Amino acid sequence: MKAFSVYGYTQSGKTTTIENIIRELKKRRYSVGSVKEIHYEKFEIDTKGSNTDRHKKAGSELVTARGYFETDVLFPEKLPIEKILSFYDQDYVVLEGVTDYNIPKILSAKSIEEIEERIDEGVFAISGRIANEIDSYKGIPVINSIDNLDALVNLVEEKVFEILPDFDPNCCSACGYDCRTLGIKILRGEANREDCVISKNKVKLFIDDREINMVPFVQNILSNAVKGVVSELDGYKRDAQIRIEIGNENEK
Amino acid sequence: MKAFSVYGYTQSGKTTTIENIIRELKKRRYSVGSVKEIHYEKFEIDTKGSNTDRHKKAGSELVTARGYFETDVLFPEKLPIEKILSFYDQDYVVLEGVTDYNIPKILSAKSIEEIEERIDEGVFAISGRIANEIDSYKGIPVINSIDNLDALVNLVEEKVFEILPDFDPNCCSACGYDCRTLGIKILRGEANREDCVISKNKVKLFIDDREINMVPFVQNILSNAVKGVVSELDGYKRDAQIRIEIGNENEK
Repeated sequence: MKAFSVYGYTQSGKTTTIENIIRELKKRRYSVGSVKEIHYEKFEIDTKGSNTDRHKKAGSELVTARGYFETDVLFPEKLPIEKILSFYDQDYVVLEGVTDYNIPKILSAKSIEEIEERIDEGVFAISGRIANEIDSYKGIPVINSIDNLDALVNLVEEKVFEILPDFDPNCCSACGYDCRTLGIKILRGEANREDCVISKNKVKLFIDDREINMVPFVQNILSNAVKGVVSELDGYKRDAQIRIEIGNENEK
Repeated sequence: MKAFSVYGYTQSGKTTTIENIIRELKKRRYSVGSVKEIHYEKFEIDTKGSNTDRHKKAGSELVTARGYFETDVLFPEKLPIEKILSFYDQDYVVLEGVTDYNIPKILSAKSIEEIEERIDEGVFAISGRIANEIDSYKGIPVINSIDNLDALVNLVEEKVFEILPDFDPNCCSACGYDCRTLGIKILRGEANREDCVISKNKVKLFIDDREINMVPFVQNILSNAVKGVVSELDGYKRDAQIRIEIGNENEK
């Protein structure tokens, strides 16, 4: 799964840019999901006094509204992007206004001042209203999503890579960099997505069918813990592939 | 995780009953989540013209609104209850208006006619407005959640069990019944939750895809060894299903 963010000040043309990109990606036969970061303190999607709102006010910690044509899971907290992305399995996920995750970004801006204030090394393209005035900024293409959508989405296809982990450098820098630096180097063509050792792992862990990323030393701890038991059993072979499934224990 | 449904006709007092039950369960120090089944064709939680609505209209197949204090994942379909419950990790999940899943139920009714129309073998209590008139129906307690909440929630604690699977009888009837019949027999005290063999045989080991049979104490040793590591990782949930795959290190 690949993901990128379109960010920038309001009225810069963010949502329009995203609408156009989503339509074009779909036209190119990709499956697409999206996430909207809402910078508005009082945001509540539910209607005051609705039954689901009454559940919440009564103390329900997680409320879901299940309709005929939609199912809305209302988590009462700001979830980490990694957790949110675990609900997705599309080819591309477009994030609007998200700047706190390790993914390539398109900066949407109205003016050169806005570019200068917001640009960082994770930006591979610039769009929004400024694209009516300039077509390049310090080597970064500035592309109008209305009259040059093809070029913008070609760039998305070229630059956006499979989601990288986003570990603390103290947890993993096995590729030689921290996760964010690797992301920037991939964008620049100075590294490859395959350089992330997590993707090479031989030890995979799934909790309720969702893969959990493990840094290499945790992979080894788990592998050794398992082999310490399994190697004593009839049927064990060195270098065999081992699969363990532990079901719901129905603990009280 | 335990779950039960409160169902019945509108205006019978369903939501009030659920509000009271949620408050009392929380008072008893349980964590509680809830699901509301919405029987309204046109239900849409999002606001027309909102940025997230624009994402959806542009073709985004899964849209999430991430605010400061809530994260709303808007699935564009009616998800199966089993899938919805996979997002929950509470002690109790209260479902409003859900009748298509294998869980104990409280029937909410205004009249004896409504009871007769809607009651089935999965009902362990009756509540709602009818509770002002009768206190028992064919042996099933009829309890008012306003002036007799303690008794109603005591019954929830007594009757509601860890969620059973809901397999097609052709897939599993290893306990001697189909899953729904087992649920009914547990409610009646004619069977135990532990009779579900799926919950029993909970650790499976495959070496090169061949299942290795383990006596229970070896299953426990392996399970404990794995959980000793896995339970420290982000993403671990009590009652989660765990799968580990350890590849052949010689593979490229």
